[in-house]
Amino acid sequence: MTNWRLLLEYDGTDFAGWQLQPGARTVQGVLEAAFARITGRRVVVYGAGRTDAGVHAAGQVANARAETRLEPRVLQRALNASLPRDVAVRSLDPEADAFDARRDARSKLYLYRVWNAATRSPLHERWSHPVPVPLELGAMRAAAASLLGRHDFASFRAAGADGRTSVRTLTRLGVAGEPGGELRFEVEGEAFLRHMVRNLVGTLLEVGRGRRPAGWPAEVLAARDRRLAGPTAPARGLTLIRVDY
Amino acid sequence: MTNWRLLLEYDGTDFAGWQLQPGARTVQGVLEAAFARITGRRVVVYGAGRTDAGVHAAGQVANARAETRLEPRVLQRALNASLPRDVAVRSLDPEADAFDARRDARSKLYLYRVWNAATRSPLHERWSHPVPVPLELGAMRAAAASLLGRHDFASFRAAGADGRTSVRTLTRLGVAGEPGGELRFEVEGEAFLRHMVRNLVGTLLEVGRGRRPAGWPAEVLAARDRRLAGPTAPARGLTLIRVDY
Repeated sequence: MTNWRLLLEYDGTDFAGWQLQPGARTVQGVLEAAFARITGRRVVVYGAGRTDAGVHAAGQVANARAETRLEPRVLQRALNASLPRDVAVRSLDPEADAFDARRDARSKLYLYRVWNAATRSPLHERWSHPVPVPLELGAMRAAAASLLGRHDFASFRAAGADGRTSVRTLTRLGVAGEPGGELRFEVEGEAFLRHMVRNLVGTLLEVGRGRRPAGWPAEVLAARDRRLAGPTAPARGLTLIRVDY
Repeated sequence: MTNWRLLLEYDGTDFAGWQLQPGARTVQGVLEAAFARITGRRVVVYGAGRTDAGVHAAGQVANARAETRLEPRVLQRALNASLPRDVAVRSLDPEADAFDARRDARSKLYLYRVWNAATRSPLHERWSHPVPVPLELGAMRAAAASLLGRHDFASFRAAGADGRTSVRTLTRLGVAGEPGGELRFEVEGEAFLRHMVRNLVGTLLEVGRGRRPAGWPAEVLAARDRRLAGPTAPARGLTLIRVDY
């Protein structure tokens, strides 16, 4: 029995998220089905991050214990031939049996894309959130800097999330690009609460639109009250870029 | 009656090409339907280039004569609200009545994307053609240079095309990028024969794969025989970037 480490890429548009759900098309579901077809056994695939419905990944990491006589490159090719076109195994390597893609992850990097132009862009909007009014980058950058570091991010967790600790460390929250085209929010941290990246971006967008001052996100953070943050930014702008171990 | 000039962007994946066809979803068809809903009249939209099924556009140009009291910005917004998500009007301006998007075009720039990595990429392959074997850029560049200029491109026209002159001027045929990622073929000229860009790229790819020497495309050109060129590269890699007037 080999514990395989997988590097995965997917277009989340037509998936109901990462996690297996009966009757829904999920990334975990199509991966487990591909492993089952190739090995003839049930295989469980554990992802580093349970991306939500519509969220994409350029570098999701997962592990799966499977018995096969296939060489790693042959197994990878067989998986890619069996998987649907919107998900691919970028690499596959044998790992220590104790390796756990979720628990061993040290940090994750997410990219949130905003298409910030007056008119829609069919070639960008599959992977970005359209905001037609020009956003104030300086104000968003000042607000972003005030959220860096180790804090209780309770204000930015999904509504209805359970009561475990919401203290997290945010190591990067950058805003690149120019109004009139694509803006890129780079968000990096050890670990994230459910919807935290999208709630951080949704809150910064309120500042960028001029609806709130640059000091407001720090107040939201301090209040530890989910009802105060901006709206959750739509899933389609979000891509899991990298998981570090 | 105003002659409107439109700058258009579309994701060609789900279109049966530009040109109106009964019973098929085409770019011209959805544009004419949107104009008809807004103006209450039949409006004919003329495109600068009749892109094939699956070909994308970042900057297609079209003209359409329509009577409306709407201001240009309001008409543009109404069209974008009425059009499906995979096509958008980037700009719309009144033009001289004699303006004809097709006949007045002086040159067109196309981009052909190849995803040249060993494994599939769901985030790139919507707009690129996957070639898993490493391509030889130097050989493709040498071959490309031998095709520049004014020539009879009969070898690169679509099979079954009619007998009008196949002399065209190719002003740019560049290859950028690196194997292991995205390669970009930039193809510019006054006008193109049907399938000419895809046949040029398909022929260069034969050289890049090492199946043919760098001198071969010039021989194909000189022979003026469609049967000699490489296979037509798939539509999904091709994007019409710009039309100049």
